[in-house]
Amino acid sequence: MLGGYTGKVLNIDLTTGNIEIEKYPDRMLRKYLGASGIAAKILYDRTDENTDPLGPENHLIYMTGPFTGTRVPSSGRHEITAKSPLTGIFGEGDVGGTWGVNLKRAGYDGIIIHGKAEKPVYILVEEGQVSILDGEHLWGLDTIEVDEKLKETHGPKTVTSCIGPAGEKQVLIASIMHDGKDARAVGRAGLGAVMGSKNLKAIAVIGSGKVDVADEEGLKECLKKSLPKIIANTQSLKQLGTAGGAVMAEKWGDIPVKNWSRGDWESIKNISGEKMAKTILKKRYFCGSCPIGCGRDIEIKEGPYKGVSGAGPEYETIGLLGSNCMVDDLEAIAYANELCNRLGIDSISTGSAIAFAMELYERGIIDERDTDGVKLDWGNGEAMIEMVKKIGSKEGIGELLGKGVKRASEEIGGIAPEFAVHVKGLELPAHDPRAMSSLAVGYATSNRGACHLHAGGFYFEKGVTMPELGYTEMQDRLSSEGKGQLTFHSQNIMCILDSLKLCKMLLFGKVTLTEIVEWIKYTIGWDDFTVEELLMAGERIFNLQRLYNVEYCSISRKDDVLPPRILSQPRLDRGTGDYLPPLGKMLYEYYQIRGWTMEGIPSEEKIKELDLDDRHVPLI
Amino acid sequence: MLGGYTGKVLNIDLTTGNIEIEKYPDRMLRKYLGASGIAAKILYDRTDENTDPLGPENHLIYMTGPFTGTRVPSSGRHEITAKSPLTGIFGEGDVGGTWGVNLKRAGYDGIIIHGKAEKPVYILVEEGQVSILDGEHLWGLDTIEVDEKLKETHGPKTVTSCIGPAGEKQVLIASIMHDGKDARAVGRAGLGAVMGSKNLKAIAVIGSGKVDVADEEGLKECLKKSLPKIIANTQSLKQLGTAGGAVMAEKWGDIPVKNWSRGDWESIKNISGEKMAKTILKKRYFCGSCPIGCGRDIEIKEGPYKGVSGAGPEYETIGLLGSNCMVDDLEAIAYANELCNRLGIDSISTGSAIAFAMELYERGIIDERDTDGVKLDWGNGEAMIEMVKKIGSKEGIGELLGKGVKRASEEIGGIAPEFAVHVKGLELPAHDPRAMSSLAVGYATSNRGACHLHAGGFYFEKGVTMPELGYTEMQDRLSSEGKGQLTFHSQNIMCILDSLKLCKMLLFGKVTLTEIVEWIKYTIGWDDFTVEELLMAGERIFNLQRLYNVEYCSISRKDDVLPPRILSQPRLDRGTGDYLPPLGKMLYEYYQIRGWTMEGIPSEEKIKELDLDDRHVPLI
Repeated sequence: MLGGYTGKVLNIDLTTGNIEIEKYPDRMLRKYLGASGIAAKILYDRTDENTDPLGPENHLIYMTGPFTGTRVPSSGRHEITAKSPLTGIFGEGDVGGTWGVNLKRAGYDGIIIHGKAEKPVYILVEEGQVSILDGEHLWGLDTIEVDEKLKETHGPKTVTSCIGPAGEKQVLIASIMHDGKDARAVGRAGLGAVMGSKNLKAIAVIGSGKVDVADEEGLKECLKKSLPKIIANTQSLKQLGTAGGAVMAEKWGDIPVKNWSRGDWESIKNISGEKMAKTILKKRYFCGSCPIGCGRDIEIKEGPYKGVSGAGPEYETIGLLGSNCMVDDLEAIAYANELCNRLGIDSISTGSAIAFAMELYERGIIDERDTDGVKLDWGNGEAMIEMVKKIGSKEGIGELLGKGVKRASEEIGGIAPEFAVHVKGLELPAHDPRAMSSLAVGYATSNRGACHLHAGGFYFEKGVTMPELGYTEMQDRLSSEGKGQLTFHSQNIMCILDSLKLCKMLLFGKVTLTEIVEWIKYTIGWDDFTVEELLMAGERIFNLQRLYNVEYCSISRKDDVLPPRILSQPRLDRGTGDYLPPLGKMLYEYYQIRGWTMEGIPSEEKIKELDLDDRHVPLI
Repeated sequence: MLGGYTGKVLNIDLTTGNIEIEKYPDRMLRKYLGASGIAAKILYDRTDENTDPLGPENHLIYMTGPFTGTRVPSSGRHEITAKSPLTGIFGEGDVGGTWGVNLKRAGYDGIIIHGKAEKPVYILVEEGQVSILDGEHLWGLDTIEVDEKLKETHGPKTVTSCIGPAGEKQVLIASIMHDGKDARAVGRAGLGAVMGSKNLKAIAVIGSGKVDVADEEGLKECLKKSLPKIIANTQSLKQLGTAGGAVMAEKWGDIPVKNWSRGDWESIKNISGEKMAKTILKKRYFCGSCPIGCGRDIEIKEGPYKGVSGAGPEYETIGLLGSNCMVDDLEAIAYANELCNRLGIDSISTGSAIAFAMELYERGIIDERDTDGVKLDWGNGEAMIEMVKKIGSKEGIGELLGKGVKRASEEIGGIAPEFAVHVKGLELPAHDPRAMSSLAVGYATSNRGACHLHAGGFYFEKGVTMPELGYTEMQDRLSSEGKGQLTFHSQNIMCILDSLKLCKMLLFGKVTLTEIVEWIKYTIGWDDFTVEELLMAGERIFNLQRLYNVEYCSISRKDDVLPPRILSQPRLDRGTGDYLPPLGKMLYEYYQIRGWTMEGIPSEEKIKELDLDDRHVPLI
């Protein structure tokens, strides 16, 4: 048995109620590293072009990595993978919290769910015992209520992954939420709708076993060097959370303002991490094994939003529900954030959809007859909150907006697609390719659509270094030089982190690939593992996901695009001036370095080099 | 009465057989200049978003300009305008020959056709008399046969505009052909299918009247300066025809090779204008009032294509059916060209569709089962000819390819859209934006889709000058600097030429805007007309066409794109190296100069400035 790895994956067929334990060969862990890689392989094996994302044949795959549950820093994470109903392509989400750690402690690496229960159910994994239980009484509850109810039933150590009313109603931007009031989200790509389509309300886990590693003492000793460095370099995250980045992001022209149509926005200071620290912040929140603690635990004690508490808004939520809607009321955003969490919808896609609707409203394409009387003006926090409720409840115009901006704009027709800011149907997160150039090619090519956490190059434009790859200084954010190569490297690194299960915030902690290889050695026990093999595995995983999209979803270069507004409308602000990233040029460099054809298809040589020519042989 | 202008337009309802004469106010000629502008206004008035391009409600508008039929050089032209069934947006085509001149001599400026005849008919305009005649005996004939048959019936002075079998079958890339064996085409945008959808086979015209101008002697005198200059500067066109540009186009990386996927191609010399001059050329052909005579009259006297005669292949045909399919057999191309003319299909879209199919065949996406056994290898002239026949006859895979590469690629699905080189559904002509940068923004924004004759900036990158606009030297073809502005100017100039009716080849003859204003003075009689008013009219016409697309066809910046291959795959040849035009940057400059919003919509201020706020008031 390898360390950090139970080898056991639950396979649950909700149609028949059948529960099996599957085991994949150790060598497959080395080939695909863990969570994201293994789940991508299983999705590749078990779904295809005929899979309806909302049909019983779709697979919802929960997977941990070899670091999950160990003392490796910021490793308390898991991945959820499925074919996305929002985009129709490969979908996944990485999330922290404590759910993954508990699953590992209960003795399993992951859970593969397929089929569809006849009526609402939930899954209970309790120290190795697995059951499918009647979930009728949970149906209709919000995600925090579900967590409370399951803790009442199964005890306070119960940790939940669940959907809210939005997931039940198969809203296409529905999230899967974890840890109740501490709210950790698998937000993107509408995986909550997949869970809802299976009549699965929640997975409750109780685990108290120990996650073995190859060399506990060696790991402990090794981390004595890493931990102080990580802590020293992440003080800003500790003090201000991810929202601490908002002020700088506005200065750089990075955060979206007014549905991505403008730049400078002074009101950012009213919704910043600094403001939160001075007002509603209660304490920090830590995911499993994390020394940073960037999570915010907030409480609003007075005013119209009195009573809002628990997980505070992250940078992304502030960027999309805040600046992108021009709402500068932090407490309104905090309430909207709690609503998103309770109803179970992605705050990024939701904020994007609301800003999109505000632009349509301003331009007279929709009016109060469409919004049930809501005056959808820029900066109207109450209206923004009303829209969150409508989207999460699939009511009124919320039904349309909950389909995501791509579909909504196509249904509205006319000029509406101009204002829909997405790639491959996934709304852009709150980082602008016009401010950090690598995001242009990164968003255009990332496997789940526009995603900074999959693109990754922007970390290097913010000063992250990686000496093994020659990135020893901050990359010029307003230049396209070498950004194809940077995106190649950073996407592969994102796959590595998502598979081993390491939080991307560790990059700010100046963690190196060499350190990660050390951690692998002490955790899994691979003494001969190298940085080169690690990078190759990352590249393999990225290519397997691309092949899923190419072979099953007809994705090619035609889809590797940016929305018109990003491609040809400069922000004209003090951070970016009139800079526009030249996507065509960057794509050319990128495809070449990837060893893909000019249509964006992995070449036969590259597939062979990555040992993916056996990709049609099932993992298990 | 203004000179060069009958003021009379025929309005023919084919459903009822009703024929009326309409008259539009003189001031509208000054506002919209003539052919293209007037026809755009009529189309704007009489069709809208509910118009099915192939329904009886579509309007097929033949229109001459104030210069047509006068001694103004290269003015023997007319325009045909309709909503395009290929692209679904504004469609038009400019054409030379003698048909327009004859219509004017018969006493009419244009013909508006709508409705649908119960069975095949043709229209006869004979010296002012107009009739709708039974066309059953013409149905099924090719375009040259129709011309011969109508000359037999109505005499040798009869000039025809007609469709071939492709137009009858509503092939979406069907052309409308003129002048029989001298074959002058309205090729683009599938207007032949509109004619077919109306059961209208031909319009035969006999006209022997005189086209009056304001000051015959003045004009004659004035032209004494212009004509020698034009003739001196167009010697190459005279000697080698448009195909004389092929060798230079290959050297510059301008002509498409292998479905736009590569550059250098030495075999160009085998299909060049020089080669034609030495082999199959019989004599030159002149459109009405033309001092240049770039048309080629050819004859193949031996070999497999013996008997081919009449209009020889133009540069575009050589680029699309030749180099783009890698066919280096000039006689095979000449035969394919005659087939395109006889069957009535656009040789540009046809060549593009065949190259597209060849790429699918090479990549195994289609095979011999799809092609009825035709081995569709690159450079296989026989196979290319077979495909022309299939497309023109709507047989086998020709039915699919005849829908144009956009629809065909969408129906095939998967990666096929990667290989479909078009903008807004119109296939690119044989000029590459990677070689002449202005074409990037020109193709992306031209009103009928990818069209060099509407974009126009490339003329200035080939050395054309226009002193009134400050273009006094050749524009750098591999730079994006100022190309938004150049495209603004050149598109407006194209509208001016298409409306007055002047051949674009006059630009090579160094004709200036000042000269054109002189010609207007002596022809129409507007003594107070200025270069500024002329340019404003061009801009007005361009914007009216854009407004048609915006208001009736949901066109906006999202559609102002380039195909992925052009945007991000360099030719890597000796002419262009790895140059890729930065479309986003150019579009930004372009929209600003146009006074359009960043969504590509004419602003209210611009609409007012151009006096287009009354655009909903009908012309007549």
